[in-house]
Amino acid sequence: MAEPEDSQSAAAWWESAITEIAPGSIRVRGYAIEDLIGRISFPAMIWLTLRGELPTPRQADLLGAVLVAGVDHGPQAPSIAIARMAITCGIGLNSAIASGVNVLGDVHGGAGQQCMELLSQIDAQCRGGAAMDSAVAEALAVWRRQHGRFIPGFGHRFHGNDPRAERISVLMREAVADGVIEGRFVALGEAVRAELARGKTSPPAMNIDGTAAVLLLELGFACELGRGVFVLSRSVGICAHAFEQLQRGERIKGPIPPEIGFQFSGVASRKLPDGENLP
Amino acid sequence: MAEPEDSQSAAAWWESAITEIAPGSIRVRGYAIEDLIGRISFPAMIWLTLRGELPTPRQADLLGAVLVAGVDHGPQAPSIAIARMAITCGIGLNSAIASGVNVLGDVHGGAGQQCMELLSQIDAQCRGGAAMDSAVAEALAVWRRQHGRFIPGFGHRFHGNDPRAERISVLMREAVADGVIEGRFVALGEAVRAELARGKTSPPAMNIDGTAAVLLLELGFACELGRGVFVLSRSVGICAHAFEQLQRGERIKGPIPPEIGFQFSGVASRKLPDGENLP
Amino acid sequence: MAEPEDSQSAAAWWESAITEIAPGSIRVRGYAIEDLIGRISFPAMIWLTLRGELPTPRQADLLGAVLVAGVDHGPQAPSIAIARMAITCGIGLNSAIASGVNVLGDVHGGAGQQCMELLSQIDAQCRGGAAMDSAVAEALAVWRRQHGRFIPGFGHRFHGNDPRAERISVLMREAVADGVIEGRFVALGEAVRAELARGKTSPPAMNIDGTAAVLLLELGFACELGRGVFVLSRSVGICAHAFEQLQRGERIKGPIPPEIGFQFSGVASRKLPDGENLP
Amino acid sequence: MAEPEDSQSAAAWWESAITEIAPGSIRVRGYAIEDLIGRISFPAMIWLTLRGELPTPRQADLLGAVLVAGVDHGPQAPSIAIARMAITCGIGLNSAIASGVNVLGDVHGGAGQQCMELLSQIDAQCRGGAAMDSAVAEALAVWRRQHGRFIPGFGHRFHGNDPRAERISVLMREAVADGVIEGRFVALGEAVRAELARGKTSPPAMNIDGTAAVLLLELGFACELGRGVFVLSRSVGICAHAFEQLQRGERIKGPIPPEIGFQFSGVASRKLPDGENLP
Repeated sequence: MAEPEDSQSAAAWWESAITEIAPGSIRVRGYAIEDLIGRISFPAMIWLTLRGELPTPRQADLLGAVLVAGVDHGPQAPSIAIARMAITCGIGLNSAIASGVNVLGDVHGGAGQQCMELLSQIDAQCRGGAAMDSAVAEALAVWRRQHGRFIPGFGHRFHGNDPRAERISVLMREAVADGVIEGRFVALGEAVRAELARGKTSPPAMNIDGTAAVLLLELGFACELGRGVFVLSRSVGICAHAFEQLQRGERIKGPIPPEIGFQFSGVASRKLPDGENLP
Repeated sequence: MAEPEDSQSAAAWWESAITEIAPGSIRVRGYAIEDLIGRISFPAMIWLTLRGELPTPRQADLLGAVLVAGVDHGPQAPSIAIARMAITCGIGLNSAIASGVNVLGDVHGGAGQQCMELLSQIDAQCRGGAAMDSAVAEALAVWRRQHGRFIPGFGHRFHGNDPRAERISVLMREAVADGVIEGRFVALGEAVRAELARGKTSPPAMNIDGTAAVLLLELGFACELGRGVFVLSRSVGICAHAFEQLQRGERIKGPIPPEIGFQFSGVASRKLPDGENLP
Repeated sequence: MAEPEDSQSAAAWWESAITEIAPGSIRVRGYAIEDLIGRISFPAMIWLTLRGELPTPRQADLLGAVLVAGVDHGPQAPSIAIARMAITCGIGLNSAIASGVNVLGDVHGGAGQQCMELLSQIDAQCRGGAAMDSAVAEALAVWRRQHGRFIPGFGHRFHGNDPRAERISVLMREAVADGVIEGRFVALGEAVRAELARGKTSPPAMNIDGTAAVLLLELGFACELGRGVFVLSRSVGICAHAFEQLQRGERIKGPIPPEIGFQFSGVASRKLPDGENLP
Repeated sequence: MAEPEDSQSAAAWWESAITEIAPGSIRVRGYAIEDLIGRISFPAMIWLTLRGELPTPRQADLLGAVLVAGVDHGPQAPSIAIARMAITCGIGLNSAIASGVNVLGDVHGGAGQQCMELLSQIDAQCRGGAAMDSAVAEALAVWRRQHGRFIPGFGHRFHGNDPRAERISVLMREAVADGVIEGRFVALGEAVRAELARGKTSPPAMNIDGTAAVLLLELGFACELGRGVFVLSRSVGICAHAFEQLQRGERIKGPIPPEIGFQFSGVASRKLPDGENLP
């Protein structure tokens, strides 16, 4: 039979510092939920829940801008197409959204987090005394050796200049001018862009992942939460597409119209050997 | 070989009215994304993306209140516990969040949607000429026959009075007084509560699912989006818990401490029969 | 602080009759795992784990036939396309497989379970004294009233005659002849097919879902496990496709080639109103 | 409008070599499905689908042994606990299984794949002329520098000697003696074990992940399929546990009994500042 200290350890096993619950009482990071509802904005609530303290109004607005920017990019994104197909297979809206969110992985949704990690490493070098230019060149060389030629946060296979990135940049410059953010990572991002542009006629612009990464670092977010914030933002588009698809009433939607078919490139028709010695 | 009309049909297969994409241009529901970023709030963006038109500022605030209310309820909710265990298994934050969202199903996250469907049915009866009291009594009887004794949106196994529900109710009454919402579903919800209270000494209060359902109906949301809005809200808590767990560095976290073990209630030790005639 | 009986309840909370674990010992349904490995077949192990007792060799072979039959149906199935797109987004093979399995829902993977439920209901009527023909006609009428015109297990939008269904039928007839299965559900399935054929020039054939449903009922499987067995079978194809896609090295694969694009059917370009009163 | 060559590319976009489909015809890796059903075993079908060619009967049996070995390890594994909680939240059996499979990630389910990668690297060194002992020592040093002190495939936090590993080892030695497998990776695994034992009084034994890794390498499986095979095996236990839980009829099952609660370690009760300047 289990000992009493085991029971204590069962409660300790699920220790958490986020939300305190008692009958008739819910406190998020110490604040009674009824004081928060209707008084702070949803981005401020997101900040509080993820990080433990309230932002200032300007900080909450900047987080809100990032959340607005990433909401959707159309049904050709795998996350969106997956959610649309999922809803036609007879699972709930929650499971269709989960199907889309599940694929916002290292390649599809992780560029922001990776860019934050890269800039954080460069920042640590600079704080340790390295010159910014050499720290940037060194970090890019290491990245390319380990991960290939794409630098996360720069370039886009579709948008030459990404309207989301340009708009976020304007908001960031205003926030630097107003002293809301320090501008340290804005400068680092610019240094990376300049290094990538050296000797190129059409250098890659900073994309939305990169711009959001810079802003989230300025706001003090941990790198992993870069991916978290993107998930919260893109979940909106995933939900909207799943719901749009749900209203169509289609069943078992495949990726292309059935009459197009797919190209089979495998082994042509063949026969099992006769006899009993089959595996 | 495929015919040209097949190609047309491949584009048509993925037809969508939400976001229009062209190089250098992203328009959500017709609005250029760069005009939306930094100018409308995240709840307003959620409303626009899900429904196609902008809300008024008061409508956006009411949606924001619902989104703030549902963010978290601690690690004993399966969705939260699942996300925390998931992150210790070596999958990304997106996949841990997806694991939690995936289980916000008919029982765990669907009460709001079900309550919206129930109230919509009663509303349709009333609009067709039925008296509210008899429409309510009839709808509850049908529900219980089909689904059992629990009425979605009423009662809570933990909170006698849910502080989230009470606060949302205050905001709703203000919105009715100000003419922001009509109050039709507020009255219906009250009629259901009264019917449930008949002859009971401790009748079930309307819970957060029910109150949110009433408010979302007042705001014109489709029932399925009741679940969608809850998913967007609870994703915040799921993300926060997965991140809190990630920082602990635990590996392969099970549901209870290993030293407690689990009770085995199955067949005691037995032996395979000798010989070659095994399946 | 928690009481000792809470600790007991923590172990009881996770009570299970499937596998007993102790240091150096793993027993599945009472059998030591080292006695099972290399002595019973994988289908026999599946049967034992799901149901608690070993099958006979013929029963295991019939389950194996069902498992072989459902393995794959090409990349146009949403479950397969989803897993292929998922792997290009930078998530692990396990998460890509999960993404595919997640959508084997009521519509995409649930037909077998639904057919088992329908036949079980008819069987209960017959055991209660109803004539088979009238029980069948009544059950089909009820099904259509509640779920629409498709009867689960019959007809296929692609295969007129499904080679998997025909082969399983042959194996079933042999098993009935040999007394391995009773044939009760084979007869019921035939009665449903005959009822569906009445007055039709091209009646729907029993498809693979229907044939597998009949066989699994003959073998004594619970209806929900009809879906479970299909999941175990189709997971093989999902895994194979995810792995084939992984070897291609593509990144962020959408549902159609980017140059085809998708058809936008929404609101044309419009502008936010001027002024400060935005939501 | 799309051009005809786009249509060609839509079919080519989904090119696959696994299964060929035509009305009335399904061929897996060239073999008609109706020839496979009832004639080859489920492990042989798994091998064929994943790899393109049929195994020999002995090869299929060895794969079957690995599949039998990994089926279940009780409800304290996160994958199992997650599936059990998921089914109580009102999602289908498929989605509950997916929830469990989704977390068989780098830490929980990836040890086999990692061990295969480690042994493959050492094998490549040896084939390139390195002495086995120094190749092993070098590879372990590199691994520890990059990933920490745990070597995948060795040691178990619960089983000192894992009965599954010991049984698979016996089968492997028989297969080497019979010439079914070469024994190259058996020797490599033994060399790693010996290196890990140097100077230790209680060296870690090779666990089930390691033993399965060695056998799958001997059988010619790609490393990524090590994880795939484990997923196919453990899915059986996940399904069995979800079904066992489903039969209990519990709703919204959390990780520990509600009366135990969880330990809150966060900020104590505090109040929002007064005034209008909230975020």
